[in-house]
Amino acid sequence: MGLFSKPIKTMDDLFVHTLQDIYYAENQIAKNLPDMAEKAQDPQLKSAFQQHLTETQNQIKRLEQVFQQHGQEVKGTKCAAMDGILEEATEIMGDCDDPEVCDAAMLSAAQAVEHYEITRYGTLIAFAKQLGRQDCAAVLAQTLEEEKATDKKLTALAESKINRQAS
Amino acid sequence: MGLFSKPIKTMDDLFVHTLQDIYYAENQIAKNLPDMAEKAQDPQLKSAFQQHLTETQNQIKRLEQVFQQHGQEVKGTKCAAMDGILEEATEIMGDCDDPEVCDAAMLSAAQAVEHYEITRYGTLIAFAKQLGRQDCAAVLAQTLEEEKATDKKLTALAESKINRQAS
Repeated sequence: MGLFSKPIKTMDDLFVHTLQDIYYAENQIAKNLPDMAEKAQDPQLKSAFQQHLTETQNQIKRLEQVFQQHGQEVKGTKCAAMDGILEEATEIMGDCDDPEVCDAAMLSAAQAVEHYEITRYGTLIAFAKQLGRQDCAAVLAQTLEEEKATDKKLTALAESKINRQAS
Repeated sequence: MGLFSKPIKTMDDLFVHTLQDIYYAENQIAKNLPDMAEKAQDPQLKSAFQQHLTETQNQIKRLEQVFQQHGQEVKGTKCAAMDGILEEATEIMGDCDDPEVCDAAMLSAAQAVEHYEITRYGTLIAFAKQLGRQDCAAVLAQTLEEEKATDKKLTALAESKINRQAS
């Protein structure tokens, strides 16, 4: 939360703040994914990152729709957690030469990103329902389902790697 | 990852680095939970935080066991993601007077913490298996199950709040 953010006094403030948090986070992810897709060596990982970029761009549009439905200006607020996840991933990726290690670090970072999104969208849907905004909850639920599907795909990729090595 | 961390060149380095990351994260959680338990107004939320503190202390011991099994010094490395989640929670909590809003913000932060832990333990188990360390994977799996159970409990708390308000 930035120094100049509005104080959070009501459930509505908390909902709008959390929307701004994930809006910033999604935009940071959209900025980082092209670089991750370029660096990924495993073709399936590369393709997962490319596909998730398209999804992320749609998810950003959905968030803009929710801001509008709720009569709020579209804006982001710095999300230190997402900055932390991406900063750590960038640091490890910049540091590693071995493609296997680099792919594993990126996959791990991508899973952390997905879980952050899953928890935040889950929270946003709960807040929207508490505020009687079923319309916002319905839009956010579409993204939550996509994030869960992406997480499953990344987990399957991580597991197939272990199975390939074991065989 | 701190400035003086060992460069990550191998899967083993990545495993040890991720262990150090979650070891730092668990210790930060253990430091923050007593304050969250004290501030929580909802008795079920307060009790969930108190119980999770005990679990977290056991999880720290399990991580120490894994460091030892893997022949590594027990140490943490700064985890910017966990610092970000906790920093944001502290800021919102310091700013809100309404107990309902404060509880909702803490519950949201606790769910983000759980999801971060779930993703990191999942990754650690995958890395341990890739490295043939089934012994480490087995210890880490105990914690993963606890974290998933805590996440379910927190989600049920969030949902019961919505249902109470709807009825």
